[in-house]
Amino acid sequence: MNVLQNLKWRYATKAMNGQAVPQEKVDYILEAIQLTASSSGLQPYEVLLITNPELKAQIRKAAYDQSQITDASHVLVFAAWDQYTEERVNSVFKRNNEIRGLDDSATDAYRTRLLTMFNAQTQEQNFNHAAKQAYIALGSALVAAAEQEVDSTPMEGFDNEALDEILNLKEKGLKSVLVLPLGYRDTTKDWLVNMKKVRTPKEELITQI
Amino acid sequence: MNVLQNLKWRYATKAMNGQAVPQEKVDYILEAIQLTASSSGLQPYEVLLITNPELKAQIRKAAYDQSQITDASHVLVFAAWDQYTEERVNSVFKRNNEIRGLDDSATDAYRTRLLTMFNAQTQEQNFNHAAKQAYIALGSALVAAAEQEVDSTPMEGFDNEALDEILNLKEKGLKSVLVLPLGYRDTTKDWLVNMKKVRTPKEELITQI
Repeated sequence: MNVLQNLKWRYATKAMNGQAVPQEKVDYILEAIQLTASSSGLQPYEVLLITNPELKAQIRKAAYDQSQITDASHVLVFAAWDQYTEERVNSVFKRNNEIRGLDDSATDAYRTRLLTMFNAQTQEQNFNHAAKQAYIALGSALVAAAEQEVDSTPMEGFDNEALDEILNLKEKGLKSVLVLPLGYRDTTKDWLVNMKKVRTPKEELITQI
Repeated sequence: MNVLQNLKWRYATKAMNGQAVPQEKVDYILEAIQLTASSSGLQPYEVLLITNPELKAQIRKAAYDQSQITDASHVLVFAAWDQYTEERVNSVFKRNNEIRGLDDSATDAYRTRLLTMFNAQTQEQNFNHAAKQAYIALGSALVAAAEQEVDSTPMEGFDNEALDEILNLKEKGLKSVLVLPLGYRDTTKDWLVNMKKVRTPKEELITQI
């Protein structure tokens, strides 16, 4: 299937049937996340891959009892950096330069400009910027999952602080931003599965100038 | 190419050669944006498609003189709703229900909960939430463009207020969040084209629990 067919096939699955997603499909989706673009290539988030049933049950409680979390075989949690620090940013530039065979001096001006910009922001602005990058990865993950004919449900609706607590994110300098259960639709229980996909019409969404 | 191959092929093109992207490829990328998931299906943004050379020159000025903006044949600007209003949210629910043949009463409880949540937020929180949804669409657009072998450069680095002014976004209740030039790489001028793609290693990015 091509990208448009993938996007048409997928929907925010409301009921999953418990069937396990094969590991190679999960790995494929994770690789799509890993390869996703991010601002200055910082990839300012981590992804937690949860399969433990007890942990999933706890997450479900923090996510207003949405059943997909326990009926999915794998749950991804995207957790963004709570702020940009010199250490974090420098470490990305260091790795890039090592792999590309560049001297650090080649990127020092850009790195310094970036740090100055982040330092001038509040911690909340830093976090919001980092969180947005995770949304680009969500975009890739949704297309990749559909290509693998794996169902998924992008979720923002959960108690972020409760989830941070469950996953000990605070001590890692992370804050949860998105939850993405991966599994298979339960066509007998899912009220959305046979509904028409509705999108903003092109003439409203897009303006040519 | 599959999604992973698309993601490997693409990169943030630093120099474009002026060659025009065929309209059907632009339409394909726009349709991928249109089909992208968003929170509660609100799609709280618009996309401006700019081909006018004078306008591109103005945008380039507002974007720290990045040459891709004038050397791309098409420039997309993602502009998010400046806030969620009852009118905007109701209009999405009304359209969905009409197309799905549902009575508005079927979604009233959910719609009311959503409005209560947005009303409890500051206008900036509303805008940030809307802006994030545009980043999911960016994720789809990058994969779709690569599938069409169209180069692109996701940009956050521009003077948002200047761009809002150029495109009269304020009066439409919109604020610019992302710029995406579409075109073709100039392999003789692009310093990044032959650099290795570097990503956070899986063992750092992903934690299995």
